Amino acid sequence: MTARIVEVRQDILKKNDLLARALRSRFEEAGVFVVSLVSSPGAGKTTLLQRTLAALRSSLRVAAVVGDLQTDNDARRLAEAGVPIRQITTGTVCHLDANMLEQALEDWDLRALDVLFVENVGNLVCPASYDLGEALRVVLLSVTEGEDKPLKYPTIFGSADSAVLTKIDLADVVDFDRDAARQAIEAVRPGMDVLEVSSRSGVGLEAWINYLQAMRTHAFAVGTH
Amino acid sequence: MTARIVEVRQDILKKNDLLARALRSRFEEAGVFVVSLVSSPGAGKTTLLQRTLAALRSSLRVAAVVGDLQTDNDARRLAEAGVPIRQITTGTVCHLDANMLEQALEDWDLRALDVLFVENVGNLVCPASYDLGEALRVVLLSVTEGEDKPLKYPTIFGSADSAVLTKIDLADVVDFDRDAARQAIEAVRPGMDVLEVSSRSGVGLEAWINYLQAMRTHAFAVGTH
Repeated sequence: MTARIVEVRQDILKKNDLLARALRSRFEEAGVFVVSLVSSPGAGKTTLLQRTLAALRSSLRVAAVVGDLQTDNDARRLAEAGVPIRQITTGTVCHLDANMLEQALEDWDLRALDVLFVENVGNLVCPASYDLGEALRVVLLSVTEGEDKPLKYPTIFGSADSAVLTKIDLADVVDFDRDAARQAIEAVRPGMDVLEVSSRSGVGLEAWINYLQAMRTHAFAVGTH
Repeated sequence: MTARIVEVRQDILKKNDLLARALRSRFEEAGVFVVSLVSSPGAGKTTLLQRTLAALRSSLRVAAVVGDLQTDNDARRLAEAGVPIRQITTGTVCHLDANMLEQALEDWDLRALDVLFVENVGNLVCPASYDLGEALRVVLLSVTEGEDKPLKYPTIFGSADSAVLTKIDLADVVDFDRDAARQAIEAVRPGMDVLEVSSRSGVGLEAWINYLQAMRTHAFAVGTH
């Protein structure tokens, strides 16, 4: 039984990888920089995305796709930014996959976009294995979650390109140990870029926006786009 | 392909249900009240469990089994309570199942225990479908996660018997809307018992301990034990 599950699972992942590769080519051809956000539920993906869309929309053509098991709460929250938003409702599936993203993008002219954000389902396990064709995968860790989460969920941190410590305005209130968190990230993913933001107080948001723009420029310069 | 996955999955769940039923009978015969805790990562399962074990150990024979993908950090934290603790490391599996629990309990004399706690892997999706034979399943929701999580993860709230709002000392700091959270829980699981605690300040802990003891007495009285 176990062997059969593994086999089925590998088939699914192989299929997903092929689809993700095709998506990545489409994104490159269209010149759109695709950034995905992963985290546990409630780490602040949607709020950071709201701030990010608001900051970027005057200079860049931005849009977002958001995944959730149920509800379109996040899409409705993001729609306030006045940019194109699409919701993927996954039902009982705990992650987005390349096929869901491809379907959500149908009828969307990717050439009309500079940056596309993809907010994954809140989960620190399932999204790790599913490539979405994104250029940049960012894992969020809120200071209220505890410093050792990277050690407990190494796969998702390993699959991400950058880490953002969110709700940093609460760091003192919850006795968050910055050094311990950074050491845990470093242990799992040596050299990973780590940013700190508070979507509420605004601390770190400018650096985050600059980082995104630099990564976009870099991606185009090295020709991965 | 999809049909085949569903079929395999149903086989697994059926197997798990049979095992969980056998475990439940064992727990009843041994007179041990089994309480499982589920939540997203960082909602405060381990800290609440530390406080709970410390509060109960003078009057009851308590023990705990904790699940994590990686690390035995939680088991080491809990060991400080001076009660029997076992760690299940699941690798890449995002939930505990009845078989893992059964194996972890091997060589353990259940008759020597009054209450056994099972801390599941931090995940709001995967643990929902796996019965562990527990008498009481408690879902934790920290005030930092946002009030609409029950609507986004209805299955796990539906599978639980009670809900605990954790980190309640941070409610004001994060502008937590108590009523909205309770309404969201009520929408998904009408009539569910909802408690509020702060493991840090101690608020609500006495009520939580009393609740556990009342549920234990109730379980024995109605003969589910």
